[in-house]
Amino acid sequence: MGQTGDKILRVAVLGASGYSGIEALRLLALRPEIRLTALTSEHYVGRAVEEVHRHLSGLGLPRFEGLDADQLRGRADAVVSCLPSRVGAPTVARLVNAGVRVLDLSPDFRLRDPEAYRRVYGAEHPAPGLLAEAVYGLTEFQREEIRGARLVAVPGCYPTGALLGLLPLVRRRLIELEGICVDAKSGTSGARRAPELAQLFAEVNENLRPYSVGSHRHGPEIEQELARAAGGAAAVTFVPHLLPATRGILTSIFARPRPSANDEAIREAYRAELGGSPFVRLLAPGQWPELRNVRATNGCELSFFLDRRTGTLAVFTAIDNLGKGAAGQAVQNLNLMFGFDERAGLAQVAPVP
Amino acid sequence: MGQTGDKILRVAVLGASGYSGIEALRLLALRPEIRLTALTSEHYVGRAVEEVHRHLSGLGLPRFEGLDADQLRGRADAVVSCLPSRVGAPTVARLVNAGVRVLDLSPDFRLRDPEAYRRVYGAEHPAPGLLAEAVYGLTEFQREEIRGARLVAVPGCYPTGALLGLLPLVRRRLIELEGICVDAKSGTSGARRAPELAQLFAEVNENLRPYSVGSHRHGPEIEQELARAAGGAAAVTFVPHLLPATRGILTSIFARPRPSANDEAIREAYRAELGGSPFVRLLAPGQWPELRNVRATNGCELSFFLDRRTGTLAVFTAIDNLGKGAAGQAVQNLNLMFGFDERAGLAQVAPVP
Amino acid sequence: MGQTGDKILRVAVLGASGYSGIEALRLLALRPEIRLTALTSEHYVGRAVEEVHRHLSGLGLPRFEGLDADQLRGRADAVVSCLPSRVGAPTVARLVNAGVRVLDLSPDFRLRDPEAYRRVYGAEHPAPGLLAEAVYGLTEFQREEIRGARLVAVPGCYPTGALLGLLPLVRRRLIELEGICVDAKSGTSGARRAPELAQLFAEVNENLRPYSVGSHRHGPEIEQELARAAGGAAAVTFVPHLLPATRGILTSIFARPRPSANDEAIREAYRAELGGSPFVRLLAPGQWPELRNVRATNGCELSFFLDRRTGTLAVFTAIDNLGKGAAGQAVQNLNLMFGFDERAGLAQVAPVP
Amino acid sequence: MGQTGDKILRVAVLGASGYSGIEALRLLALRPEIRLTALTSEHYVGRAVEEVHRHLSGLGLPRFEGLDADQLRGRADAVVSCLPSRVGAPTVARLVNAGVRVLDLSPDFRLRDPEAYRRVYGAEHPAPGLLAEAVYGLTEFQREEIRGARLVAVPGCYPTGALLGLLPLVRRRLIELEGICVDAKSGTSGARRAPELAQLFAEVNENLRPYSVGSHRHGPEIEQELARAAGGAAAVTFVPHLLPATRGILTSIFARPRPSANDEAIREAYRAELGGSPFVRLLAPGQWPELRNVRATNGCELSFFLDRRTGTLAVFTAIDNLGKGAAGQAVQNLNLMFGFDERAGLAQVAPVP
Repeated sequence: MGQTGDKILRVAVLGASGYSGIEALRLLALRPEIRLTALTSEHYVGRAVEEVHRHLSGLGLPRFEGLDADQLRGRADAVVSCLPSRVGAPTVARLVNAGVRVLDLSPDFRLRDPEAYRRVYGAEHPAPGLLAEAVYGLTEFQREEIRGARLVAVPGCYPTGALLGLLPLVRRRLIELEGICVDAKSGTSGARRAPELAQLFAEVNENLRPYSVGSHRHGPEIEQELARAAGGAAAVTFVPHLLPATRGILTSIFARPRPSANDEAIREAYRAELGGSPFVRLLAPGQWPELRNVRATNGCELSFFLDRRTGTLAVFTAIDNLGKGAAGQAVQNLNLMFGFDERAGLAQVAPVP
Repeated sequence: MGQTGDKILRVAVLGASGYSGIEALRLLALRPEIRLTALTSEHYVGRAVEEVHRHLSGLGLPRFEGLDADQLRGRADAVVSCLPSRVGAPTVARLVNAGVRVLDLSPDFRLRDPEAYRRVYGAEHPAPGLLAEAVYGLTEFQREEIRGARLVAVPGCYPTGALLGLLPLVRRRLIELEGICVDAKSGTSGARRAPELAQLFAEVNENLRPYSVGSHRHGPEIEQELARAAGGAAAVTFVPHLLPATRGILTSIFARPRPSANDEAIREAYRAELGGSPFVRLLAPGQWPELRNVRATNGCELSFFLDRRTGTLAVFTAIDNLGKGAAGQAVQNLNLMFGFDERAGLAQVAPVP
Repeated sequence: MGQTGDKILRVAVLGASGYSGIEALRLLALRPEIRLTALTSEHYVGRAVEEVHRHLSGLGLPRFEGLDADQLRGRADAVVSCLPSRVGAPTVARLVNAGVRVLDLSPDFRLRDPEAYRRVYGAEHPAPGLLAEAVYGLTEFQREEIRGARLVAVPGCYPTGALLGLLPLVRRRLIELEGICVDAKSGTSGARRAPELAQLFAEVNENLRPYSVGSHRHGPEIEQELARAAGGAAAVTFVPHLLPATRGILTSIFARPRPSANDEAIREAYRAELGGSPFVRLLAPGQWPELRNVRATNGCELSFFLDRRTGTLAVFTAIDNLGKGAAGQAVQNLNLMFGFDERAGLAQVAPVP
Repeated sequence: MGQTGDKILRVAVLGASGYSGIEALRLLALRPEIRLTALTSEHYVGRAVEEVHRHLSGLGLPRFEGLDADQLRGRADAVVSCLPSRVGAPTVARLVNAGVRVLDLSPDFRLRDPEAYRRVYGAEHPAPGLLAEAVYGLTEFQREEIRGARLVAVPGCYPTGALLGLLPLVRRRLIELEGICVDAKSGTSGARRAPELAQLFAEVNENLRPYSVGSHRHGPEIEQELARAAGGAAAVTFVPHLLPATRGILTSIFARPRPSANDEAIREAYRAELGGSPFVRLLAPGQWPELRNVRATNGCELSFFLDRRTGTLAVFTAIDNLGKGAAGQAVQNLNLMFGFDERAGLAQVAPVP
């Protein structure tokens, strides 16, 4: 379906009470060309959205309802699923098969190989039949496929931060595929909105710690996309950290430049590969990304430092994990899928300070 | 001047590089019916806005320029002045006299009595001739006067938080005028964007402290407006605190209810006095304001608790000190002054979390 | 038992893996005159302390064990119980009856009247037989009773902050007993170390909110102690807030001064009633308490402002909720009970910044 | 001078009102074997310490005085200088020449080569005559030299975090000297206690940003020490970040393992090279350093991950930038210099949470 002038797009959001869900509501609720027709939430069935999330008062949103594909079919042209891994897949599959176009923010359809899925997630893939057609929705690199997709797997927050920095270099053959290190620092809203000891304020504040070093599930996702771009295997040492901040991922990437990589070639690679994006800002030399400049937006700041003394190329990206790292990118993709301007609903200026 | 369909309103922002200045830019830059024609900044004359504040990139803003009333005249229909106390008054006076309508966020035109100004600010008022006509721009209570004003004194952030809670009660004679205590907690962006030891992260984080107890300059401003509403003197014990947060003011008000004050009368007072506002949210009993629900918006959350056991009425308000407490309220007033919808440009949903 | 020169005091800590428990370990583990002989933890039975709390490595602590009064008897001269309300009472009762002296940080033995307990906690008191002899351990006001106590009910964190400011005034008849308002702001470590949605970093950071207004269980505790000091009923409007900080409670108290209350009389009251305490610091006029100055210590900062214009006396206190508000005060009391210097183990200087 | 049983060591602290200065006071003030005889502070000459830093009340400290080597000579056996770069060097030189043993926390005596100093700091070295004898005080690797030193250059906070992780590997030839990347995140107290826009709470909170990428002055200091250990040049890509936390540095190090590097060899290297230290905690496999576990202590947490898939060795260290990264290490060195137990005054348990 393309968007015609006077048609209202009906959108359902699944898992709408979690952090990426309410961010999706924030981005969609005020758009005149979109109507939110169904919001599901396991915990809050039957409750008004503003009872649970008062900041969403006065937007005319429907009440939370239970998850039921039959109930959703016919009420939505597009579904944004913010359900956790495996929880949403059966519903997603039924909806796609019923002709509803789905943007899935879970990791269920990001790995293309069911065997990889089994290895990483320790379970059989819940809907392997859809893997072949799911489009990995890192918008800047997949615009055409996204436009026609029935099912878009919205990339993870960490992979988005890493791949925006890495893919242009890999596609242009400017770095070696070995020895890539990704040191990423994420705000806590990257974790689920659910009671968890490690996420308590008293555990996170005035603290910083790496976690899941070498074993985080976003590592294989990063490698898959690099390999696809490179036409060969890529291995990345991926280190996520839990940052004492609510929103944002700052990613440091250390790679080995190939001989062709000089400042101008690198800059040109980013310009050419990303320059078309209204959301990625390539910074001037000597400027470095900051979380706050992309906070509550779909933006990405990016810059690099080619350290000739050491033979290292350092790349830095900043995104909002709930924005470009989740709901923002979902909306950006939805815009493409339904013929809206890619920037529609995403023109916010970051609230700084 | 009223706004006609196809007219673009030309707006200049003075002191545009500080915290309330950049918030005003954030709120105004994306509006098609407004053009930002001049931005002044003492520190950054000649520099592009995005060099200094990267989050404002890509908005087509003019470069920062020096402060010069002659240069501004003829280029702006409205001026939003975010200059500090006394710095802007001469320019404001010249602009008003030249027919430019001004919204002044400084305290210069908030106290109506030049003698009170002298007592509170320790100096002669820099433009006493304008005091008589300046309108105190607490929008909810002054809509008509604001519509026709040449000069609006935008209220201080603390007074806004206190008066939204107090004025309805005072106007309806529901509380005594004596013994009012206001305990307010403000994020650090209420202070100027300027190097100051007490505002360093290492001094503010994991800390909380009252300051200027009994001597803060916003106290007399609160009392002036209460007295005006009451038709008699009002004295308030005002205690501000510096909170380890960037944005927001939470205000606790403790007052002595008069015999007529019961839950329904109080609720009705707020409904009647504030109910017309699209920005003030009176919460259900047992709900209490939170800073985050109004963050980066022009909203205010408000609730109360009538403690019969102790004969105390406790009222709570939450605002964003840069929103309803500064730039948001300025834009709300500007909308009224120029015939826009009061909500124009202020429909943002708070980015939660 | 009094402390003799070469005797080692054997101490058990119940609920030793929670926030007040690990603070008690921090304060006790390095003292040569004390040996920690048993640590209980429901969740971590059998595990080494440093596995769970790495900052407690290398202190030679015993492994966590289950809660079993029979197992504890004979192994400890003193027990510090950090168990939650009602969980520990049966064990505490058995230990006290077996001759072990207990410091209980739960609210179980703070309210003297089993009927009040039923009203506030919604359940029968689990060990009413001990209520008569339990000593309310607000050290500065009960030194003699604490010295001889078998069971000390360590005050709640909010009551400690409020009562240090209020009791001297009430005992000296310097304020009215009606119209007292207590506006308290607490760091999040005042809540249990347990998964809870409202305590997530993403829910607390950049936020501030009152909660349990007029219904918090610490209100009646404050009133009980005021009434005891006043020899008559006292009613307090008590408003707690959740602060975006890990440690500390800042309390604002608003009271109505009696005619005898002038600056000197108030100052003298604090000096006389608290002056003997090595931990309470009465600030000079114009100085106001800050959380950081008492962080990770047993200290309290206190100051006041007598607002003659409004007829209000404002008092401010700052404590560390885990220090003077919990484990620090427990240790202070333990020192008195066993003949140590009151300051033993509590001489830490706050880590500022 | 060695420490004899009943001798009191007289210590002066220069620049005692800044962040590392007050941390030194916190660590030294309570030690019975030490007397603080002089404290200098440019800004607070003549003022009592507790007027400026209330948390240091009641410690019997001398008033702040001006900086005057003649005044200090004869009053101190040891001087801890927390003065900024170049400010203290002339005084340090005069004191050393007068027989006072000095621990200098500035970078003045860390680079051994005056030419390197000129390159890095853009000025002639202020006291080149002392460079030859100054000992680089990274305690774990220089105990013998420190014991006999007249002048100890206490390492920078970033170099301490990097070198504790790197030196054991370099000394044991377990990593290549090329391609080393150091990604470090520091709390804000690593900057001076001075008004600076970039350090305001509103600029740091909810933000994270790299800075001085490839040009930070601690880079050459790290390389100097690596080269000294390796017996050959070492080049490091060093990226510091400003973290929204007050204390702590978490450092990620990415290096290329040599063929001899396996898990056991690496673990053995750390054990052998650092195992003697009471302050460095080598974590079990799968555990990762956290800032909070070393907060307000002289501790260091360290662990590593050998990623065979990618040929990368990742090492992580956590220190408190004011502890092991500044005043704590100064005290550790002072203990060695004067014959105290290396742990004296440094046995604090981190206040967690």
